[in-house]
Amino acid sequence: MNPQHIDEKRLVKRLPARPLDSHKGLFGKVVVIGGASGMAGAALLTARAALKSGAGSVHVVLLAGNPPAVDFLQPELMLHDAESPLPPATVRVIGCGMGCDAVARNLLQDSLQSQIALVLDADALNLIALHAELRELLAQRSAPSVLTPHPGEAARLLACSTADIQSNRMASVQELAKIFACTVLLKGAGSLCATQDGVFINTTGNPGMSGPGMGDVLSGIIAAFIAQGLNTDDATLLAVSLHGAAGDALAKQRIAIGMTASELTDQTRRLLNQWRSI
Amino acid sequence: MNPQHIDEKRLVKRLPARPLDSHKGLFGKVVVIGGASGMAGAALLTARAALKSGAGSVHVVLLAGNPPAVDFLQPELMLHDAESPLPPATVRVIGCGMGCDAVARNLLQDSLQSQIALVLDADALNLIALHAELRELLAQRSAPSVLTPHPGEAARLLACSTADIQSNRMASVQELAKIFACTVLLKGAGSLCATQDGVFINTTGNPGMSGPGMGDVLSGIIAAFIAQGLNTDDATLLAVSLHGAAGDALAKQRIAIGMTASELTDQTRRLLNQWRSI
Amino acid sequence: MNPQHIDEKRLVKRLPARPLDSHKGLFGKVVVIGGASGMAGAALLTARAALKSGAGSVHVVLLAGNPPAVDFLQPELMLHDAESPLPPATVRVIGCGMGCDAVARNLLQDSLQSQIALVLDADALNLIALHAELRELLAQRSAPSVLTPHPGEAARLLACSTADIQSNRMASVQELAKIFACTVLLKGAGSLCATQDGVFINTTGNPGMSGPGMGDVLSGIIAAFIAQGLNTDDATLLAVSLHGAAGDALAKQRIAIGMTASELTDQTRRLLNQWRSI
Amino acid sequence: MNPQHIDEKRLVKRLPARPLDSHKGLFGKVVVIGGASGMAGAALLTARAALKSGAGSVHVVLLAGNPPAVDFLQPELMLHDAESPLPPATVRVIGCGMGCDAVARNLLQDSLQSQIALVLDADALNLIALHAELRELLAQRSAPSVLTPHPGEAARLLACSTADIQSNRMASVQELAKIFACTVLLKGAGSLCATQDGVFINTTGNPGMSGPGMGDVLSGIIAAFIAQGLNTDDATLLAVSLHGAAGDALAKQRIAIGMTASELTDQTRRLLNQWRSI
Repeated sequence: MNPQHIDEKRLVKRLPARPLDSHKGLFGKVVVIGGASGMAGAALLTARAALKSGAGSVHVVLLAGNPPAVDFLQPELMLHDAESPLPPATVRVIGCGMGCDAVARNLLQDSLQSQIALVLDADALNLIALHAELRELLAQRSAPSVLTPHPGEAARLLACSTADIQSNRMASVQELAKIFACTVLLKGAGSLCATQDGVFINTTGNPGMSGPGMGDVLSGIIAAFIAQGLNTDDATLLAVSLHGAAGDALAKQRIAIGMTASELTDQTRRLLNQWRSI
Repeated sequence: MNPQHIDEKRLVKRLPARPLDSHKGLFGKVVVIGGASGMAGAALLTARAALKSGAGSVHVVLLAGNPPAVDFLQPELMLHDAESPLPPATVRVIGCGMGCDAVARNLLQDSLQSQIALVLDADALNLIALHAELRELLAQRSAPSVLTPHPGEAARLLACSTADIQSNRMASVQELAKIFACTVLLKGAGSLCATQDGVFINTTGNPGMSGPGMGDVLSGIIAAFIAQGLNTDDATLLAVSLHGAAGDALAKQRIAIGMTASELTDQTRRLLNQWRSI
Repeated sequence: MNPQHIDEKRLVKRLPARPLDSHKGLFGKVVVIGGASGMAGAALLTARAALKSGAGSVHVVLLAGNPPAVDFLQPELMLHDAESPLPPATVRVIGCGMGCDAVARNLLQDSLQSQIALVLDADALNLIALHAELRELLAQRSAPSVLTPHPGEAARLLACSTADIQSNRMASVQELAKIFACTVLLKGAGSLCATQDGVFINTTGNPGMSGPGMGDVLSGIIAAFIAQGLNTDDATLLAVSLHGAAGDALAKQRIAIGMTASELTDQTRRLLNQWRSI
Repeated sequence: MNPQHIDEKRLVKRLPARPLDSHKGLFGKVVVIGGASGMAGAALLTARAALKSGAGSVHVVLLAGNPPAVDFLQPELMLHDAESPLPPATVRVIGCGMGCDAVARNLLQDSLQSQIALVLDADALNLIALHAELRELLAQRSAPSVLTPHPGEAARLLACSTADIQSNRMASVQELAKIFACTVLLKGAGSLCATQDGVFINTTGNPGMSGPGMGDVLSGIIAAFIAQGLNTDDATLLAVSLHGAAGDALAKQRIAIGMTASELTDQTRRLLNQWRSI
């Protein structure tokens, strides 16, 4: 069976209308957990993308030892170190640049045991691949989750090779969704998303998007959409389509070589508002 | 009795003309107090807005444990930690991301006991709701103050529910103004401002402004106008009208989803100079 | 005798032509000394202005206790703490946000005793007003110096009131030049500059420039011109004229209220290159 | 024999096409080593240039004592202190603002002994000039290296004067290439590049590029091209031509005085994508 195409025009309408008496409380709280030493930037990329995709508020829990007190470019973000109590959340994005140490594992276990919606990316996926207990917790969760593995991470989760995944992308994404009972986005050219309504393929995006941080931005967009009330399937489908379309817009502006994730975030917002206003 | 409309064209003319031999001393000193751990950005948003709205100089006292030495985007701001002596001020904005611990409470008490004009926002309002002594100090102040509660903060101040406030916005803002004898801005769609000349309603603004930090920016604008010589009523009315109009301008540029407080600040300045030059 | 007008078109031509085999060593080394706790931004403003006005390289010695390792907006600047050995310099700008403590005083004394050209601003002037030994050192210096007092600083240097200065601006600037045997720029509307060729008045600038950091930027521009080979008189005259003209250009773009020193720096560069290419 | 001209149109085509299923792993890992105390910015300039020139991922190892956790302007970069284990690399750029202490020397020795391609700049060259063991290691390396000395560094490497180098640029670059058996770029007006196919001269560039950090940016571009699969000769020739052409584009926009390395990076990317798309 062929994967279905994403109908982004229908999905974007599912974002809630903003009533006249809106306030940020209506648009959810995103908590990003990640950014260990050397990788703090990854968590900021995720958080900035969540903010610019419409989340009501965005916290970042940084595992790095010397976390900055403020994001000078986006002081709207609230930065915490890993010892601070976790802020309440509508959705947590966990894994971006998180590393795989004991602190990371504890934060992941806490997240898996919570009733909070989760976007699981990068090192969260690596930890789940490593630890049977975490796999168990994920499979048993009743709250919704999204997994966003690239082929290498999918291979680790399924204990096979990346080549196995790439030659069986359709079957792989379905198996992951079945094992973990959640939305799964298998990234790569023609990203596949396994949802309750079957598998979808994304047709936006281009090779210019092969730079660092692109996946971090995608996780942030998914989280923002969940925070605004979309279910994990819709949030993931809309996000992956939008993310690729933003990359396509940048490629048209001749930023194919050296395209940065930071730029993608701004382009995403532009496009999201455009799609929404049609 | 219906609230009156704000005549922003008349108010903007009350900003003092800048004489040929102007110097920054003529436009007042704003001191922002807030920015506890995890929330340092809130205080920067307030301070940047005060700077861009014409304050002569802007200091920021950050309660966070590891405050940055400089705001790289706006090195014009002077950053201090909470142990430094408080700089002299024309007006203090207190509360943005301040938290409610003992240090915060002491700084608030010091401010309430001073003869300096105050803009009381966020955690300053929460502390006042919590502590009878602070309420007393506020009610007895002779120097001018502005309160800028959102409905939840107003409910805490009046010991009722947010729903009570929202169904009696007009009565609520008047009661707060009566109890505390100061300018009160009850935020939300159609913000109400209780002044010496009765209650005014703001008709600018839109649901796109439901992001984090929007209130921090508003406090900074009010403070800048007080620093430049407006009384608290005029400063608050002009600021709320301008702030909403800036949000409307951004919404027209299709930045409704993911609009940031940072952008609002720049748009505010653009509009302020436009209004002023008409 | 009336002050003369500045012929900026003639002065700009005195900036050295950049030969084909130029390298940064030809355009001098600026060392900015200042930026004590709470005021680190002032030194960055000066340094950025020096860089953008063509200095070959720019170091910043920050007196603040927790100086940043890098200026994220301008990583071209080299940041040092006050304990590091002072880098070699063509010209030092000393005083911007420096404070008046013992470390500041020692650095100033070291500078006055050196054979390095100096731009003395803000707290350097306050320290000189306070300490007879420093006044002595300044008066005896053989290497060139520029003083850039605003009226309050001039009053402290001449042990009179600001009103005295303002009612005798011409005499005041001449007296300072005579006492200290150097170029003196008395800031304020119609800045007066006492040079070897008599006193000049600047006719550019506008009241929108009454924000924080404007003087810091001016010091940086003067230093950059000295670094590139102009004598202190020419450097100061060209800088003050350019600085005001940049402010006038911003005012025309309707950024009169809330104009920032950061913007002035970029506008200065634009104008400098324009003047230079005519 | 006259040096040959660089055929940038042919070289740019050697950058690998980005296949549909591209991912960042295909475009190499750049590790920048440098940025000692006071000079952290130099390493960031190199790293940002590598990112914007298309490297798959970019790490920065900073020797400064208080390295920032994140580059706020480019959170895509991964920042490490000098005690962290060195990340795996396709190519290392070593030397930018690195200083010459024991830590620097050890990192250089480790790099010379590795099988990783190297771009050796600034203090790496100074250390090699100082230590016979390092010279030996460089001469014996089998993995490819690029040296990018300016005339002063070349003089130190050849134990002669800068004037000697400048009056014998052709012979100097050839001698360095012969001694060290690697690609050598002798910078300065008409940069000369000694390759396997003889010496090339670069005809782009202008005296406006005499600001700090320009060489750091160049090293980053070379490294990005090596990371993407070009050999060291092609990478260096394409980079130096592009770097100069970007400076020429900025000069046309009248940013000759005060041109910054940061701007050059963005202009480089614009031009690279343009050349590539022809």
